[in-house]
Amino acid sequence: MQILQDRILRDGKNLGNGILKVDNFINHQVDPALMDACGREFARRFAHVGATRILTAEISGIAPALMTGLHLGLPVVYARKNKPITMPDTVYLTVAPSHTKGRMVELIVSPEYLARGERVLIIDDFLASGSTILGLVRLAQAAGSDLVGIGTLIEKAFEGGRDVLSHLGIPIESLACITSMEGSQILFQG
Amino acid sequence: MQILQDRILRDGKNLGNGILKVDNFINHQVDPALMDACGREFARRFAHVGATRILTAEISGIAPALMTGLHLGLPVVYARKNKPITMPDTVYLTVAPSHTKGRMVELIVSPEYLARGERVLIIDDFLASGSTILGLVRLAQAAGSDLVGIGTLIEKAFEGGRDVLSHLGIPIESLACITSMEGSQILFQG
Repeated sequence: MQILQDRILRDGKNLGNGILKVDNFINHQVDPALMDACGREFARRFAHVGATRILTAEISGIAPALMTGLHLGLPVVYARKNKPITMPDTVYLTVAPSHTKGRMVELIVSPEYLARGERVLIIDDFLASGSTILGLVRLAQAAGSDLVGIGTLIEKAFEGGRDVLSHLGIPIESLACITSMEGSQILFQG
Repeated sequence: MQILQDRILRDGKNLGNGILKVDNFINHQVDPALMDACGREFARRFAHVGATRILTAEISGIAPALMTGLHLGLPVVYARKNKPITMPDTVYLTVAPSHTKGRMVELIVSPEYLARGERVLIIDDFLASGSTILGLVRLAQAAGSDLVGIGTLIEKAFEGGRDVLSHLGIPIESLACITSMEGSQILFQG
């Protein structure tokens, strides 16, 4: 998606070690119009999968998931990293390593909002090693939901997340696919 | 705002001790169309204040802030509760008590996205005791920004947050104002 690639080149920063800083428009400051355009594009690409619910992880997945939900007319569930007091005692919980936090984080979903037979579309900001998305996959599977697609704003193809998820046999779409971050450059696929 | 009040009555739960569970449409599952309508309403109410940036706090403030930013054409900055590795070494940080977490949480904003002379509109999900919003106010003041308004989806008027914020002399708007949660009921103003 050209406008996302252009924005990454203009305002993103390659901090080295595969870390891409996009705090200017996704991860700390958010550009609502850009997120709306990305949500519209996800809605177009996943129009055919028959999703009934969107699943994401707090925090950075919320903006793209919300806009995708807006354009598909679907509710969005975000997995929480801490269990709030409003959640029932018994929940779906999994742990996943966080690249940017350097530790394991919990991902928690209430059975109230993820049920057997739901058709779940996962939307997140990054597809890197795939570990967070695999965590969301496990939550959906624990709930007996069917997975129908995975969409991420930015894929770091050199971290292999797509291979990790390929056994699911569902469409995986990224709006900007980075093939190399050697040195200070950011190279896109195609 | 009638549709928000109706939704609170239909899907919200008074858990006692002033705790309102709105996990069905705001705090865990999010209804994108409802958030869009709320963002549109905030944009209408704050059209005259000349805001240049919207400030909120992760996590639950992101959805209403994002939709308000979409309708006002403004960037959204969400204060983070943990400092990610992509953030500069020197940041604005304040602490605020979290009602739902029962402890102090940090609110952190990078100086990159909150600057002297910005006209800041604060948007959040709840106005209860006002402590989180006061934290956001301190961050904006530390950055030398001007505060131009405060908007929250749900106000719990009996917790006194509006009084705590009144010295700022700026418009405070809530889309649903709850005056009592005695017993199991939820009563609205007006």
